[in-house]
Amino acid sequence: MTTTVIVGGVAGGMSTAARLRRRDEEMEIIVLEASGYVSFANCGLPYHVSGVIPDRQSLLLQTPESLAARFNLDVRVNTRAVDIDRENRIVTTDTGDAIGYDHLVLSPGASPVIPPIPGIERALHLRTVEDVDTVIAALSEDVTSVAIIGGGFIGLELAENMRHRDLEVTVIERAPQILTPMDEEMAAIVEGHLVDNGVRIITNGDTTDIGPDSLSLSDGRVIPADLVIASIGVRPNSELAAKAGLAVGERGGIKVDDQQRTSDPVIFAVGDAAEKADAVSGEDTLVPLAQTANRHGRLVADIITGRDTRRTSTLGTAIVGLFGMAAGSVGWNERHARAAGRNLRVIHVHPVDHAGYYPGAETLHLKLMVDADTDAILGAQAVGEAGVDKRIDVIATAMRGGLTATDLADLELAYAPQFGSAKDPVNFLGYVNDNMVNGERTVQWHELEDAVAAGWKLVDVRTPGEFAADTIPGSVNIPVDDLRGRAEELRDAKSLVFCRVGLRGHVAASLLDNLGIEAANLDGGFMTWEHAQATRG
Amino acid sequence: MTTTVIVGGVAGGMSTAARLRRRDEEMEIIVLEASGYVSFANCGLPYHVSGVIPDRQSLLLQTPESLAARFNLDVRVNTRAVDIDRENRIVTTDTGDAIGYDHLVLSPGASPVIPPIPGIERALHLRTVEDVDTVIAALSEDVTSVAIIGGGFIGLELAENMRHRDLEVTVIERAPQILTPMDEEMAAIVEGHLVDNGVRIITNGDTTDIGPDSLSLSDGRVIPADLVIASIGVRPNSELAAKAGLAVGERGGIKVDDQQRTSDPVIFAVGDAAEKADAVSGEDTLVPLAQTANRHGRLVADIITGRDTRRTSTLGTAIVGLFGMAAGSVGWNERHARAAGRNLRVIHVHPVDHAGYYPGAETLHLKLMVDADTDAILGAQAVGEAGVDKRIDVIATAMRGGLTATDLADLELAYAPQFGSAKDPVNFLGYVNDNMVNGERTVQWHELEDAVAAGWKLVDVRTPGEFAADTIPGSVNIPVDDLRGRAEELRDAKSLVFCRVGLRGHVAASLLDNLGIEAANLDGGFMTWEHAQATRG
Repeated sequence: MTTTVIVGGVAGGMSTAARLRRRDEEMEIIVLEASGYVSFANCGLPYHVSGVIPDRQSLLLQTPESLAARFNLDVRVNTRAVDIDRENRIVTTDTGDAIGYDHLVLSPGASPVIPPIPGIERALHLRTVEDVDTVIAALSEDVTSVAIIGGGFIGLELAENMRHRDLEVTVIERAPQILTPMDEEMAAIVEGHLVDNGVRIITNGDTTDIGPDSLSLSDGRVIPADLVIASIGVRPNSELAAKAGLAVGERGGIKVDDQQRTSDPVIFAVGDAAEKADAVSGEDTLVPLAQTANRHGRLVADIITGRDTRRTSTLGTAIVGLFGMAAGSVGWNERHARAAGRNLRVIHVHPVDHAGYYPGAETLHLKLMVDADTDAILGAQAVGEAGVDKRIDVIATAMRGGLTATDLADLELAYAPQFGSAKDPVNFLGYVNDNMVNGERTVQWHELEDAVAAGWKLVDVRTPGEFAADTIPGSVNIPVDDLRGRAEELRDAKSLVFCRVGLRGHVAASLLDNLGIEAANLDGGFMTWEHAQATRG
Repeated sequence: MTTTVIVGGVAGGMSTAARLRRRDEEMEIIVLEASGYVSFANCGLPYHVSGVIPDRQSLLLQTPESLAARFNLDVRVNTRAVDIDRENRIVTTDTGDAIGYDHLVLSPGASPVIPPIPGIERALHLRTVEDVDTVIAALSEDVTSVAIIGGGFIGLELAENMRHRDLEVTVIERAPQILTPMDEEMAAIVEGHLVDNGVRIITNGDTTDIGPDSLSLSDGRVIPADLVIASIGVRPNSELAAKAGLAVGERGGIKVDDQQRTSDPVIFAVGDAAEKADAVSGEDTLVPLAQTANRHGRLVADIITGRDTRRTSTLGTAIVGLFGMAAGSVGWNERHARAAGRNLRVIHVHPVDHAGYYPGAETLHLKLMVDADTDAILGAQAVGEAGVDKRIDVIATAMRGGLTATDLADLELAYAPQFGSAKDPVNFLGYVNDNMVNGERTVQWHELEDAVAAGWKLVDVRTPGEFAADTIPGSVNIPVDDLRGRAEELRDAKSLVFCRVGLRGHVAASLLDNLGIEAANLDGGFMTWEHAQATRG
């Protein structure tokens, strides 16, 4: 009989444990969990704060008792592994136990980053069941205002749930935008929606001091804050591994090979504490997501029990729901791709999530990053009130399957008017990409100023009514349906055409190009440009 | 200057026309449309019958005038092409025109199949805007009952919309099940939902006579039918092509190569009238779907204007929404795969569409067909009240990308509790497949009787409460959490274990297998078995 000790009893660790038992009835399997709970629903915690998930019990997916009954696991909660004696293969716990192992699996997760701000000890966090109990207890007192430091996924989920409790909510983000996995013009859509729902957002916000009922920013502003929550990000819990002399990466993640093996061949690591391989570049990265933790947990169990199998690399697919709007992303964002020096095609489209003639269609904002040299999809982002998760999942699957951006045009996606369009938004991205592969020139919103300076003439091809309502300063108006008759007016100019979303602009640019008149289309049209302005405002 | 004549002005034809203009400003482009409308929303027609889509105008996406203004197209409605003189490249119309062409594109669509039933001339159809006007006019009279002959996608959509008008609705389907693209145990879920919503469903229904206010079946039943709608299917409109000597396939579709070229190199065909290449087998097939028509229309325009590009094969991805439930499919069903002699793995799972701890989670019924020799995905089906379209689209994309069934376990799909689970239903299919690849034995619902006859013992591993409420006749009850202690009771039997959906069954079968006791798991559990019983009832 062999013994496997697993450090950490949530997603990755518990997946390992249950899978081990399904493959080996004889093995001794011991799970050490530092908190009082195993296998709880981390991602549900923010929703219990507001009562959207009313029943605390529903967050507790398993107990040590249920796991003993079904899987004959020895699960020890409130038990922290404090030392690994690799030579003798013994783990020591803070409860005084010394446990011998044949295999050791580290799945200790990650901990909140605590910024060095005076008064930060008053800030709460949200990682564990104990944390959510603490937050709810704090809210039962005389709290009317909450400040959340950090505008990432969990900080914003908390902001929504605090608004559900009718609190005054301020989110303070150090970066120039919230939701840094996305690009600024996409995050701006979400920011507008949060503001519409009563959340105050402060970007470029540098908290200098946390007082008893407020916090102070470096620009002198004072933010009411009966409660302060720090949600700045997480750092991998790799101290135990480092102390044991296991290799740890620059960003603190435990180094593993493609079988999740650490630098010690009988010790594995999975979950938020372990490094992943980036699917686009192959480089080591940190991606704290439950799906990957579960998958790698199962993989490690298979390997320990004798299967020769390997992990796949990580796309970092993620989504957040906020006041009925969703924002999702997969792969690289534009900032990342530009920093990596890729020759890029960037595409923004704004179709509706399902056939416009069927009730309830909502605008879906989609962005695709393509390697212009290979046509490989580097990443995508989506924001909207319906259909966001589906398009991100389809693109994530296309990336995993090695489909090119042009292949997106050929995807056969399910169409009935409630669910999509005869040309699905994802097909649309493929069509636009195909046009660019075949020479259509587009200009990004952030290239517009330079283009105008270089002599490009802004031509708004929308209707006179749309033009009169609002346009890009300096534009002339030639509606697309008049352009055929008026094209000669543009004969000697370089025309940067635009419409509301880019579609009429494509028709106009094609027409001019066919007539031998130099033209480019503003990618994403007035809508993307307008989103970007919000971030510059 | 060249001339392209396009026969048919809806999805495929109009996509060709608009794309041609975007690529060639000089070309003369003439579109001949037999009906009075171009570019209308076929798929919306059933929803206008009930007023779910209230505005008739919203179904008319373009008019000849709007197409002339934007694309300089010569669109002629109420104009039927009646003859093709291939030698002289002239199309003759029923309005007396003779139009020369350099390229001809046939996109004439399909027509309703009219079964040879006495009285069938009273039956209405639903393919065109004129049809929907006729149906609505007929409903304005003293109609209380409607009989719909044909239980396919459109027939059932019509049934829903007729119920929205508070009519007594009967659907008569000749086959033993509705929705024949799906397998019977999956279609049974939809049938139950339709019945719950007041639709009477008659399968194996053979209509022998249509009277003035009823119709008669061969078994003697008389069905009230103030209105009769025939929705039996469509046949390709290939008469014009056949008359001109172009090659037509066995099932009546116009034969084309992978550039949509007919047997005449200057004549192309797209849309419902043209054959497609089946993505699984590569064989010629007919798939009347709007997405493919649009895609191939664009492709033909590219080819005519000088691009060397090829079509991809067709998966036949389809979906229907019925009273808030969706049913979708992609690729082959089990009947098709068995008829083709494939060595099959079939997997049924019944997870929830998003995290069970977040409000509103709905059961999602998923089925996957896998080639057991190659691990290739052959097809999938999904039924449920949420998330069906997403999972079908993900699997369609995986099939297009050549991912195997096992690869589904590694897909990184967007997870937040509103949108999915840390193990998405699609991941789940991959996990179950992986278990089977590694030797887990499952039995399908339709193999159960034979298994029992061959000596397999039915073991219900659910709780005593579940067992008492309902079980498969002949089962004994050993709850999974008691099985470790009671496994020896099964030492000398072959145990066919089952639970509600297959998950506890997997745990139980793994346990027995690890103890050296022969076991198999009933695929899809009691739930799939129960669905199948409904079809046998």
